[in-house]
Amino acid sequence: MNRLQDLLDIELPIVQSPMAGVQSSALAVAVCNAGGLGSLPCAMLSHDAMQTELMAIRAQTTRPFNVNFFCHAQPTPTREREMVWHAALAPYYDEFGMNVDAAPAGPGRAAFNHDAADVLEPFKPAVVSFHFGLPADDLLARVRGWGSKIFSSATTVEEARWLEARGVDAVIAQGLEAGGHRGMFLTDDVTTQIGTFALLPQIVAAVRVPVIAAGGIADAGGVAAALSLGAAAVQAGTTYLLCPEVATTPIHRTALKSDAARHTALTNLFTGRPARGIVNRIMRELGPLSAAAPPFPLATSAIAPLRARAESLGSGEFSPLWSGQNATGCREVPAAQITRDLAAAL
Amino acid sequence: MNRLQDLLDIELPIVQSPMAGVQSSALAVAVCNAGGLGSLPCAMLSHDAMQTELMAIRAQTTRPFNVNFFCHAQPTPTREREMVWHAALAPYYDEFGMNVDAAPAGPGRAAFNHDAADVLEPFKPAVVSFHFGLPADDLLARVRGWGSKIFSSATTVEEARWLEARGVDAVIAQGLEAGGHRGMFLTDDVTTQIGTFALLPQIVAAVRVPVIAAGGIADAGGVAAALSLGAAAVQAGTTYLLCPEVATTPIHRTALKSDAARHTALTNLFTGRPARGIVNRIMRELGPLSAAAPPFPLATSAIAPLRARAESLGSGEFSPLWSGQNATGCREVPAAQITRDLAAAL
Repeated sequence: MNRLQDLLDIELPIVQSPMAGVQSSALAVAVCNAGGLGSLPCAMLSHDAMQTELMAIRAQTTRPFNVNFFCHAQPTPTREREMVWHAALAPYYDEFGMNVDAAPAGPGRAAFNHDAADVLEPFKPAVVSFHFGLPADDLLARVRGWGSKIFSSATTVEEARWLEARGVDAVIAQGLEAGGHRGMFLTDDVTTQIGTFALLPQIVAAVRVPVIAAGGIADAGGVAAALSLGAAAVQAGTTYLLCPEVATTPIHRTALKSDAARHTALTNLFTGRPARGIVNRIMRELGPLSAAAPPFPLATSAIAPLRARAESLGSGEFSPLWSGQNATGCREVPAAQITRDLAAAL
Repeated sequence: MNRLQDLLDIELPIVQSPMAGVQSSALAVAVCNAGGLGSLPCAMLSHDAMQTELMAIRAQTTRPFNVNFFCHAQPTPTREREMVWHAALAPYYDEFGMNVDAAPAGPGRAAFNHDAADVLEPFKPAVVSFHFGLPADDLLARVRGWGSKIFSSATTVEEARWLEARGVDAVIAQGLEAGGHRGMFLTDDVTTQIGTFALLPQIVAAVRVPVIAAGGIADAGGVAAALSLGAAAVQAGTTYLLCPEVATTPIHRTALKSDAARHTALTNLFTGRPARGIVNRIMRELGPLSAAAPPFPLATSAIAPLRARAESLGSGEFSPLWSGQNATGCREVPAAQITRDLAAAL
């Protein structure tokens, strides 16, 4: 009946969104063993850490799983852009008694490459998914060659068609409601980014491969709604953020449980690319989308020390509090329960 | 079974969005007679025209219908704001060989008042709906006193609660996908505006009155999805814009049928308030949301002559091409067929 479940031999049409920086193998394993497709995000993992996490998944589940990579082009830093960015952040450094020019390189975001593929190949995961388009043809051919299915995110009809033309096995329709980074890669105009209700049926009509709905899906009603709009499955992330298997910080958890979670915005302040998070002081004061932020992922290094200092003082005002527009599904229960509850109306 | 259908004694849980400027009684009558709730938008009608249209509805249907009003506070024009706005538009006036200082007052948007209520009262429509909040207490009491049910749009959970506390009979949850004016009234921060997939279930959870879903709903799958998310009914507008009963201009129709319809944005250029339309030259060049535009509805008068001149030359580059983010449901068929097709999966 369901094309994605058939394609992957999974029990439930539920994909757990890879969420770099807050989760590793534990969440993926829990979701896989509950019948969904668990995901390991690798954008912030060293190759050693990736190997460790992949071994942990293999040791704890025999089910299909997904490994996710970013595939952006790494920009060349320029002194000019760095100076503009440091100047924008300087008042906050001053406030904390810190020196912006001494800012160390913060956690970057690595793009998929042959070294990562070397680590990945022995594991031959059922699915390898990408964000920000697809890697170069030779890399993509390598992944396909060892048998992994390929997924990637589309934020517009044009992106969905582009991905299908390059042979992806499923398209993730990432509605504007989704938390974290917009997967947009054919445009940087955020006015092209549209809500799940509008995006999903248009992508379903535009491509022949299965479409996975992402953005705003927080409960069984949301899953039923996505399937009514033509989705073969859903991808849910925010709703897992309070699970014990996730390393969401206490500050982030508090924000997700508060009324503050009702106000998110797309911001490029934390990495350089638009990503959805709960609005906080730095987003309000610099504007959530600032021309001062250098290209992805170069914004990270100078803002990371502010985050670290503020968090050490108990404040999330400089943290990326990633969340979609619908955090109402977040509960402090095991991820298996979230997964089963999402599928409860099927 | 369905609370809104019971409340109004209508056959189908389909409300036709009032669309000021493009439709009058003909569309409302067609939708009513097909079993939905047709709507007459009055924001751009003189009181004489309102009377004529209300008589036309009464003559052609015995079904319940909705009459819609804006209820903004009318701002006081200032010479400073007008000069800023004229300066922003001056290059376009120059291009057309026109004089911006000779710009006549264009079509305004009238707020509901006692004179309008005098015209409305003898018709006692089943529903009176409002956009931009609610009118003053005495006016609202008058409408309620003659027996009309009261609807209004909410774009946030806070607005839904505010409306329920003032006794509305149903809340329209207007997702970010919706075409035309955002109904936002407790905030002017567009980052608070969220997609239907996220907004609808949060409003359903927050209020006890029936919730009508608006934004991105273009076909029977969309209606089914909205009901899965807890809606008692849907409100659809864009999908009616090609119907013969609607006075959509040929330029607007052409845009809706083209790939251009896939790129809409919120813009304040045409009236002063954010409203969603298909992106065109003036939106691209001034930015869709411009600080130069004076408060609603004062932006209208100076931009209207540019629209008129451009349209006379066959161009929609200065026109408000209102559309939601999902124009795929638009078809050149009678509104009765659109209405029945929306309800086909129920």
